[in-house]
Amino acid sequence: MAQLPTVDDVARIAGVSRQTVSNVLNTPAIVKETTRTRVQAAIAQLGYRPHASARRLRTQKSSTIGIRMEGYKDGVSGAVLDRFLHSLTEQADAREMRLLLYTAESPEQEIEQFARLRDGADVDALVLTSTFHNDPRTEWLIENGMPFVTFGRPWGIDDMNDPQHLWVDVDGYAGVRDAAQYLVGEGATRVGFIGWPSPSGTGDERRRGWLDGTRLSPADAAALSVATTDGVPEGSAAALELLARDIQPDALICASDSLALGAMMATAALGIPVIGYDNTPVAAAVGLSSIDQPLGDAAASALELLFGPSGSNLRAANEEPKHRLLAPRLVVRRSTHLAPGETTGT
Amino acid sequence: MAQLPTVDDVARIAGVSRQTVSNVLNTPAIVKETTRTRVQAAIAQLGYRPHASARRLRTQKSSTIGIRMEGYKDGVSGAVLDRFLHSLTEQADAREMRLLLYTAESPEQEIEQFARLRDGADVDALVLTSTFHNDPRTEWLIENGMPFVTFGRPWGIDDMNDPQHLWVDVDGYAGVRDAAQYLVGEGATRVGFIGWPSPSGTGDERRRGWLDGTRLSPADAAALSVATTDGVPEGSAAALELLARDIQPDALICASDSLALGAMMATAALGIPVIGYDNTPVAAAVGLSSIDQPLGDAAASALELLFGPSGSNLRAANEEPKHRLLAPRLVVRRSTHLAPGETTGT
Repeated sequence: MAQLPTVDDVARIAGVSRQTVSNVLNTPAIVKETTRTRVQAAIAQLGYRPHASARRLRTQKSSTIGIRMEGYKDGVSGAVLDRFLHSLTEQADAREMRLLLYTAESPEQEIEQFARLRDGADVDALVLTSTFHNDPRTEWLIENGMPFVTFGRPWGIDDMNDPQHLWVDVDGYAGVRDAAQYLVGEGATRVGFIGWPSPSGTGDERRRGWLDGTRLSPADAAALSVATTDGVPEGSAAALELLARDIQPDALICASDSLALGAMMATAALGIPVIGYDNTPVAAAVGLSSIDQPLGDAAASALELLFGPSGSNLRAANEEPKHRLLAPRLVVRRSTHLAPGETTGT
Repeated sequence: MAQLPTVDDVARIAGVSRQTVSNVLNTPAIVKETTRTRVQAAIAQLGYRPHASARRLRTQKSSTIGIRMEGYKDGVSGAVLDRFLHSLTEQADAREMRLLLYTAESPEQEIEQFARLRDGADVDALVLTSTFHNDPRTEWLIENGMPFVTFGRPWGIDDMNDPQHLWVDVDGYAGVRDAAQYLVGEGATRVGFIGWPSPSGTGDERRRGWLDGTRLSPADAAALSVATTDGVPEGSAAALELLARDIQPDALICASDSLALGAMMATAALGIPVIGYDNTPVAAAVGLSSIDQPLGDAAASALELLFGPSGSNLRAANEEPKHRLLAPRLVVRRSTHLAPGETTGT
C-alpha cells in the first residue's frame, strides 16, 4: 500500500497529540478553536484522509453488503446466481456500496461466517440466496438482529401476509402457468412436466403452475409428470421415461434449463416442443425456449427493501413493503416453434 | 446490526475511561496491571470483541482482495471469469481472506475505483483481469505502489524476463498449437482458424499456436483464417465465409466457444470438426470440443504470487517467481469425433 499520510503525521505537523487529532476528527466541539484550526490546516496540507476503517468506527457503517459465492455447479442453471451477482454489484455500486464475497459449504458454515461478519462489523446487511424449507440461516439472522433480505421467499411460513424477514422472489408459479397456457394455445393437449422431488419450494411452485396452466385430470397429471434431480443427463432420462408410458406428452416443460436441455436432446427426433426455466446462456445458444427471471429487477428490489429507493442507509424495520414478487416472462425460441418433422438439432 | 457490546460498555463495567480500554487493547504495556486485569475481565464478561475496523487500523491489514466484477456478456465466454471468481473466492476463504467486488465501465473508471480503495485502505491487494496492450491500469497501480497481480500477462512488454508486475496467465499459444496438432493427427490437412482482429494479446497468441500446430504455407494460412469480433452469429458468418473460398477448411479451431458454437451450427450439415476455446458450460452441453483453461490453478497462482504458499501477508517485492504461465488442455467431445455424414445436431 502506498505510504499515505497518517494521523501521526498530522499530529507532528500541527504540534499536537494523536488524541487531539482524533478529537478534531470525531468530537471537534471539545477542541479549542485555535487548536482545531491548526489541525485542520495540517490535514489539508498533507492531504490526510481519515482511514476508511476509522470512518467505519465512527459511522458504524461499512457500506458493504455480504453475499455468499455459491459453489460452481454445471454452469447451466448456476449461471442465474452469477447474473444476479453481476446486477447486484452494479446496482450496489450506484449506491456507493460494495459487495463482500464469502463461501460456505453448508448452512452451518454459513452461520459461522455470519458470526464473523457480525463480530467484525464487516457488512451492513446480507443478501441470502437459495433459501429452503426450515432454513436455519434466516432464524439465526433474525435472532441475532442482522439486517438481511433473501432472494427466494421464506418457504413454509406465511410468506405473503406475515413475512418474518425481507424477501424478493420471482413468481415461478405464474411463469410456468403462462408457459403451459402458451403450449395449450399452440395446440398441445398433453403437456408433460419434468420437475424436482417434493418438497422443494421453487420446484413445487413450478409444478403447481404447470397443473393450473394445463388443467389436466389428476390421472393424466400423474402420467405426464416425473420428478428427478437436476442435470442434463437426468433430463434426458426423464423425457425417455415419459415417452415410454401409455399416455405420451406432446410438449414438455422442465423446472430448469439443465433438465430441458437433456429433454430436448433426447426428444430431438420427435420434434416435441420443450420449454426450460431460467433462460440461461445455454438456452439462448441452442434455441431452447425458456422462462426468464428478471434478475436485474430482483437485484434492484433486494437493495430497495434493505436501503429504500436510494442511498446506503438501512430502512426502518417497520417500513413497508416487506417483500416483492416479480413476474417472469417466456422467451420463445426454436424449441417451441417446430414444423412437423423438424428436429431441434443445432 | 445487533447491539454488540461496545468499548463504552467495557469502560463502564471496568470503571475506567474509554481511552484506558483502548490502551489495554492496543498498548497494554502502558496500563497498570490491576487496571489491565479489571478491563480484561470486563471484556471477557461482556464477550466484547474489538471491531474489525479497529483491528484494521492497528494491523494496517484488511485481509481483503479487490477485484472488478466484469459486465455480464453473453454468458458463453464470460463464464470463464465467473469460474475464476468462484475459485478465487474459495481459495481466498481458505486463507481467511475475502473478496471485495467493484465495477467499472472503463479503465479510467477502474483507476478511480483504485484510488478510492487506496484511500480507504479497503483492500490489501488487487487482482486485475482482462489486461490489454498499453493497459493504463497497471501503470497507475505501479506508480501508486498498490500490490496487484494480473490474470493475463502484461502484453506488449518483455513479460517473461522483465515483468513489471506479478502476473498469471494460461498459455493460449500452447493450447491452440496442441489442438491443431491433434486435428492434423486425426487426418485434417486444412485446419482453419477463426480468430479476433489483431492486435489482441490473447487472440494473437492463439493464432500463432494454430500456425505452428498446422505448419501451413503462408498462402494457405491466409486462405484458411479469418478475423472477426466475438459472438455466436459472428462465428457462423466467419465459417460460411471460409467455406465459400477456393481452399476450404476440413476442420476449424476458434478463438472462443462463442465463435466455435456459431461455426458448429453453420457447418453442422458438413460434419467438419470444430474446436472452441474456454470449455464453457455451453461447450459441454452441446458436445463441442474445447480448450480448457485451468482456472482453479490460475486462482491459486494469483494468491501465491501475492501472498506466498499460505496466509494473507504480502510477499516481499523481490521474491521469485514473479509470474506463472499455465498449460491448458484439450477436452475432446462429439464435435471432433464425427463419423462421415454425422452431424453435430443435438
